[in-house]
Amino acid sequence: MTDTIATLGERGLIARLRARVASPPASVLIGIGDDAAVMTSERNQLSVLTTDSLVEDVHFRRAWTSPRAIGHKALAVNLSDLAAMGARPAAALLSLTMPAAFRLAEFDALVDGFATLAEASGTALVGGNMTRSPGPLVIDVTAIGHVRPRRVLARSGGRAGDELYVTGNIGAAAAGLAWLGSGVDRRTLDVTATECVARYEQPDARFFAGVQIGRNRAASACVDLSDGLADAAGQMGEASGTGVLLEADALPVHPGAIDVAKREGREILPFALSGGEDYELLFAVPPRRRRAFLAIAARCRGLKFSRIGQLVAEPGAWLVDASGRREPLGAGFSHF
Amino acid sequence: MTDTIATLGERGLIARLRARVASPPASVLIGIGDDAAVMTSERNQLSVLTTDSLVEDVHFRRAWTSPRAIGHKALAVNLSDLAAMGARPAAALLSLTMPAAFRLAEFDALVDGFATLAEASGTALVGGNMTRSPGPLVIDVTAIGHVRPRRVLARSGGRAGDELYVTGNIGAAAAGLAWLGSGVDRRTLDVTATECVARYEQPDARFFAGVQIGRNRAASACVDLSDGLADAAGQMGEASGTGVLLEADALPVHPGAIDVAKREGREILPFALSGGEDYELLFAVPPRRRRAFLAIAARCRGLKFSRIGQLVAEPGAWLVDASGRREPLGAGFSHF
Repeated sequence: MTDTIATLGERGLIARLRARVASPPASVLIGIGDDAAVMTSERNQLSVLTTDSLVEDVHFRRAWTSPRAIGHKALAVNLSDLAAMGARPAAALLSLTMPAAFRLAEFDALVDGFATLAEASGTALVGGNMTRSPGPLVIDVTAIGHVRPRRVLARSGGRAGDELYVTGNIGAAAAGLAWLGSGVDRRTLDVTATECVARYEQPDARFFAGVQIGRNRAASACVDLSDGLADAAGQMGEASGTGVLLEADALPVHPGAIDVAKREGREILPFALSGGEDYELLFAVPPRRRRAFLAIAARCRGLKFSRIGQLVAEPGAWLVDASGRREPLGAGFSHF
Repeated sequence: MTDTIATLGERGLIARLRARVASPPASVLIGIGDDAAVMTSERNQLSVLTTDSLVEDVHFRRAWTSPRAIGHKALAVNLSDLAAMGARPAAALLSLTMPAAFRLAEFDALVDGFATLAEASGTALVGGNMTRSPGPLVIDVTAIGHVRPRRVLARSGGRAGDELYVTGNIGAAAAGLAWLGSGVDRRTLDVTATECVARYEQPDARFFAGVQIGRNRAASACVDLSDGLADAAGQMGEASGTGVLLEADALPVHPGAIDVAKREGREILPFALSGGEDYELLFAVPPRRRRAFLAIAARCRGLKFSRIGQLVAEPGAWLVDASGRREPLGAGFSHF
């Protein structure tokens, strides 16, 4: 099928989209199709709002990444922001700015990638907007979640002495991006490299972990790793008014990041620490909450939590090695 | 100043934006700067969500329209959607996709246009996203409002026999766009044409009227005129399961639309009815609520309400003239 979106127009595309997404839950009183969506608010819950966009040739290349993966990622990066606040996802709005030559089959696949993650995460697609553009594909997503008042995980809640934990691995997405940019045929990549590409293209948003930790008030602060661990740790320290000390030996660097750093003759840790788009979560955990935190972490099946350092009174962000030698944490990855 | 946004990067731009917008109200617990914004929900209020975008060279041309007007309009079109649901605006998120050569002075002016309308309408800017792009300027806004459960103005609430009222005038924005496209130096335009250009570039969102009518349950249905009156009326009829009859003699066509239609040798009514971007509101009013409706309308000082027709049992959308002759209402303006 080589039909393009231009053959359908906005209303045709909206109808096509509606046919591909799950029916909204009862909390959505008015969904797609009116001037705006209407939802019930939940008693004693705060609303959490975030927006993030993916721009073709800035955040992805259509030659490398399937429309399905793009649709998935556009929602995942927003769910990651909700998770970092301890918020449970509730709804999303999808704004698509599309070149006229965008094919209907690509449109369908993009919507399917979005819709599959929406369903898995309990996110109702309640509205959006579609427009043609003389420029690149732009996917703008706004996500709305809920959290109880005393369970918000702000990045500013950390205190000196809190331990730092990170989910999953770091550097995998940066390694995946490096492989995509290397010109190597992706079908020839080994299993580790393929996993890295998948982490770059279709990141998991740690929405279950974020909500669980928030709900149990097991952490004092949280931030997601959109621009890399060095950046995330620095932001948490700055917002909390503390310093940050990361232990080099404790960092859960993905094996694929080690492979790529070696291949490119780069130092492993700076590569993994500054690599963006991991979309893992960094938590600060007060020592008296450690046991509760680890108990909840154990309930997030299949997800690893690594203790990687602590917040300290002295300002600054540092990497410390086994011999106790410190060096400043580098700057993060910039999407801009 | 010829500095571009590329000299600042995303964080520099966010800091610059924060300095230009009003401090958020107490209902915003966490605003710009964390992973997501956190707001209190209001007791017994529903959340209303909408998103709309403006794309350079599709919805505006930078050669014609100032960045300040673009910032204003990007919010106004969303407030219009909230108004059409009877919802009071509460918060907005602003996502900017900008060419690297976008100048800081233009960025500032765009933010100022947005912020001025945000303040006037009680809308807190709580978050957003900024990214560079190889393509056109894209401004994506999501607006969140509140409305009490029984005061939602859905487009589907109309019944046969309800009278139709429209705010303001129609066709002004289409006339303004025609003037901008005509190549005529805008400084030489007369006062009527200048008003039309202003209506196109910086539409008023009828947020006060929408909220007042909704709050008093004086209307059964409402829709905004983003794609013209013919389209809006057709949509309301379709959603309500009724037909629509508009009276040709009652339509409040803006004098500037008459001028442009004559100048271009076009028929006046089709031009005014299909002209998009008026961002007026169309209400359906049950006969027993007419007195209440008019009393509230009188409170919206400076805003005209015109009775222009009615919803009817017979399906279809029609324009009827003084002699009783009917013709089908044409299709609307397509943004797509």
